[in-house]
Amino acid sequence: MILGLFKLLYLYWLLSCGFLQEYKCITGKRIDFFHSTKPQPHQFTILVRSIPVSAGSSVSESVERFFMEYHPSTYLSHMVVHRSSKLQSLIKDAKKLYKRITHLQSEPNQPQYRHVGFFRHRVDLVDHYGKKLEDIEENMRLERSEVSLATQEVRAAFVSFKSRYGAAVAFHMKQSINPTEWVTELAPEPNDVYWPFFSSSFMRRWLSKIVVIVACILLTILFLIPVLVVQGLTNLNQLEIWFPFLKSILTITFVSQVITGYLPSLILQLFLKIVPPIMEFLSSIQGYICHSDIEKSACNKVLWFTIWNIFFATVSIFLDPKHIPAKLASAVPAQASFFIAYVVTSGWTSTSSELFRIIPLIWSLIRKPFTCCSDEEFEVPSIPYHRDIPRILFFGLLGITYFFLAPLILPFLLVYLCLAYIIYRNQFLNVYAPKYETAGKFWPIVHNSMIFSLILMQAIAIGLFTLKKLPLASTLIFPLPVLTLLFNEYCRKRFLPNFIAYPAEVLIKRDREDRYDPKMAEFYDNLVAAYQDPALLPIQFSANSDSLYSPLISAAQPYLI
Amino acid sequence: MILGLFKLLYLYWLLSCGFLQEYKCITGKRIDFFHSTKPQPHQFTILVRSIPVSAGSSVSESVERFFMEYHPSTYLSHMVVHRSSKLQSLIKDAKKLYKRITHLQSEPNQPQYRHVGFFRHRVDLVDHYGKKLEDIEENMRLERSEVSLATQEVRAAFVSFKSRYGAAVAFHMKQSINPTEWVTELAPEPNDVYWPFFSSSFMRRWLSKIVVIVACILLTILFLIPVLVVQGLTNLNQLEIWFPFLKSILTITFVSQVITGYLPSLILQLFLKIVPPIMEFLSSIQGYICHSDIEKSACNKVLWFTIWNIFFATVSIFLDPKHIPAKLASAVPAQASFFIAYVVTSGWTSTSSELFRIIPLIWSLIRKPFTCCSDEEFEVPSIPYHRDIPRILFFGLLGITYFFLAPLILPFLLVYLCLAYIIYRNQFLNVYAPKYETAGKFWPIVHNSMIFSLILMQAIAIGLFTLKKLPLASTLIFPLPVLTLLFNEYCRKRFLPNFIAYPAEVLIKRDREDRYDPKMAEFYDNLVAAYQDPALLPIQFSANSDSLYSPLISAAQPYLI
Repeated sequence: MILGLFKLLYLYWLLSCGFLQEYKCITGKRIDFFHSTKPQPHQFTILVRSIPVSAGSSVSESVERFFMEYHPSTYLSHMVVHRSSKLQSLIKDAKKLYKRITHLQSEPNQPQYRHVGFFRHRVDLVDHYGKKLEDIEENMRLERSEVSLATQEVRAAFVSFKSRYGAAVAFHMKQSINPTEWVTELAPEPNDVYWPFFSSSFMRRWLSKIVVIVACILLTILFLIPVLVVQGLTNLNQLEIWFPFLKSILTITFVSQVITGYLPSLILQLFLKIVPPIMEFLSSIQGYICHSDIEKSACNKVLWFTIWNIFFATVSIFLDPKHIPAKLASAVPAQASFFIAYVVTSGWTSTSSELFRIIPLIWSLIRKPFTCCSDEEFEVPSIPYHRDIPRILFFGLLGITYFFLAPLILPFLLVYLCLAYIIYRNQFLNVYAPKYETAGKFWPIVHNSMIFSLILMQAIAIGLFTLKKLPLASTLIFPLPVLTLLFNEYCRKRFLPNFIAYPAEVLIKRDREDRYDPKMAEFYDNLVAAYQDPALLPIQFSANSDSLYSPLISAAQPYLI
Repeated sequence: MILGLFKLLYLYWLLSCGFLQEYKCITGKRIDFFHSTKPQPHQFTILVRSIPVSAGSSVSESVERFFMEYHPSTYLSHMVVHRSSKLQSLIKDAKKLYKRITHLQSEPNQPQYRHVGFFRHRVDLVDHYGKKLEDIEENMRLERSEVSLATQEVRAAFVSFKSRYGAAVAFHMKQSINPTEWVTELAPEPNDVYWPFFSSSFMRRWLSKIVVIVACILLTILFLIPVLVVQGLTNLNQLEIWFPFLKSILTITFVSQVITGYLPSLILQLFLKIVPPIMEFLSSIQGYICHSDIEKSACNKVLWFTIWNIFFATVSIFLDPKHIPAKLASAVPAQASFFIAYVVTSGWTSTSSELFRIIPLIWSLIRKPFTCCSDEEFEVPSIPYHRDIPRILFFGLLGITYFFLAPLILPFLLVYLCLAYIIYRNQFLNVYAPKYETAGKFWPIVHNSMIFSLILMQAIAIGLFTLKKLPLASTLIFPLPVLTLLFNEYCRKRFLPNFIAYPAEVLIKRDREDRYDPKMAEFYDNLVAAYQDPALLPIQFSANSDSLYSPLISAAQPYLI
């Protein structure tokens, strides 16, 4: 029987590693995707931060001088980032007001007047809001001209090059003797840029990163409190001790089944719902420049948070590095029924609710009577990767760790995965619109999580054999985690580099293809302005008070003027 | 008193970090050095390994095609590496024979004849060796023409560029879609290349690295055996139990003093003498391409070996991560007297013996009567960094960890450091000739070792306060290791990149300076052949048998033909 288990484990390992060769396929797809796209501004652009400015010159001049000096043949143009948070909030206010006005005008049976002020005189609301909007617009104009000044420049700039290879060379090379100056990174897509937070100094970004890491660790530790409560709920006796008055109710079979089976994971679920937004917020103040990086970082944070707080805390593992395998081996099998219930409550329901998007639906139903404008322009939502990827990966972890401890979980997981495949496929094709192209950037997270799951499973197997006093068996399993780590190291060297940046070969080929493309001249013209801060673009809501309908077109796409 | 100790610890930390700002100074010196050197072949060259070869074409053709395709404006030339180990051993034999012949001819009072063969007929030795030498030379010629063939090409090549920046770009960019092909690294100086070991495949190098790491760990663990014996020797009672017949001798005060004080560290010393060569050997099979990298890697290995086997093993710390600080705090102070003796025996004597280079002296005295040629050309030795740097750093570690536990060690260390400064200064200026320019490459090792020492010291302080039941004190010390780690992280980001590769700014400036240098044409001509394998250069020892003296000049500098 032991021998069979061995064969099973080694076979499973081989299969898993074979599956993880998917890395190769995804790398290939990534390269193909790069070859198939039209020229994109972000392929030609890098972001430069921590630009040193000598006294008496502006950031823009510094950038121009530096790149004309060191990259004269490839440098094309640059766009310095400005501090525009105040302007952004003004634009937000103006948009809100504008919506209110259009709403008032479109629905004539709504009250158009209101009593305002100390003397409660009647005021035409459209007129009133129109004036307010004009005030804000005046402020916006003033603020915009102020922001455009050199004094409001952030020491960061998007620098565009004539070729993809030129941009990649500037990105890969350390530019300055002081490596904390002229820090380069690949530019995101223009509409992926996260404008609000553009901390520029190296030290500040570094310190905020440390602060965020500490905050994440604290959050992970403090979160254990509700988890412990939930764990108490899974144990009926404990509950009877805590709430003696519930004794009579708890003896009813149905109630006790609900409490032990579904309630704990539902409560956990509610707590977990707030984690992805918190992690996204933490990632956003970490100094990332684009939504995709923020989501990627949040995805990692949520994943490790989930693994720690659901898996390890539920199986009650605390820091005692020596006995981890043995503890895992005794605690993990005991929690099998909890995790089966978890798959059903969390997995099945979450995918089903994903299909109907229940929470947004309820939210819009609640909000409808209170919002003034019902025909609000509808924005197609984008999928929150940092919410869904960690969940799926966590079920993957459950499947891998429990496949030999409690195979009963597997059919439930299989149902979940089939459901998830069908539903997410539908959602991707018909519901969500991508905010940015990931180009497979999230795959390394999936790979790492799978490797971690495999090693965890092998550690549990070693612990189990040790517990059952089969030292030979645990010795024979021992090469497995080592082999897994070596396999991971190989993948890291073989495939990961292509997920960080494209190689010279690909870039140069693509540049050559474009060389004789007549559209490139136009593309270069657009490239110069692609990374303009949208807040700095002229937007006008109230052309003048008597023709409020006219700027509707511009308001629907205010970013495209 | 506790408060005083705090201030002392924090002040010491500040001072240490201030001292480690030396990083900045050394970075500056490194850049200055780069600016002040003449154009060097290795600045314009990279080494490319794992070159993919399509069927029907040679490595040389592949390299030419690839770099003409992707780096047409900067590519200059290349030199494919050949398998020449057999040729190298032939050259070695030839040199030995040649030395013997010149020795015989220069000393006419030595026996010129010998009885050889079954019939013991007299043979003229010069004639005999001359014929042998001719045979070997004939073999060399055959072998050389064979090695030059495409079939003997290793899939590695030195690729030279027209500018330093061009070489750096090719080094920094991933070249191929498959990151395990066209692997680039900076070329070493031509005379620093380690020719014997040119493993070319990515997988083989990666596996040999893993094997070497495992071997190092094994060596470190197995080495504990002699250390434990030495530890037994430091304890007189233990010795009396083991060897009861020594009881009478051990009661003599002088003998017991010698045994407890000096003998243990002397024995340890003898064992430690063999470690640097072993580590150097292990590093050499790890796939490094130059002596400097091998020595750097060996330096690291020897350093961690020393710290583990002398410091940790002597204070008897074994794997129990939870109680390390407490264990350290109880064990480290107890070993103060051992380490004071260690400083005296190992430190003082090693520097003094360094001055007279006692071991090479004794070795040459022993060897002299047995070697045939006394007027052997004398090679100026180079300093074995991997032997001396770890030793000095270990004394630094002792000084930092014991400065508040047993300050008595400090004057001994001070004497050692003064001695070492004077002696090594003299050795560097007057005795050793550098085999290669380090350009400050060893500094990061020094920095890391200092940071480790600081953290170790702070861990011991925390452990000590915990042992003495002063939880507040240990809490107040707690920020120190965190601050030290942050400081290290800062240095790593701020200074380390300049030790890996020079930034674009520096390279481009240097390239521009050279642009109008009339000597550059000649330099480029030499660059093409700079990385020729010395074994493939024509060397001739015996012009013809009757004029054996004539090639003496060429033999003295056989590499320069």
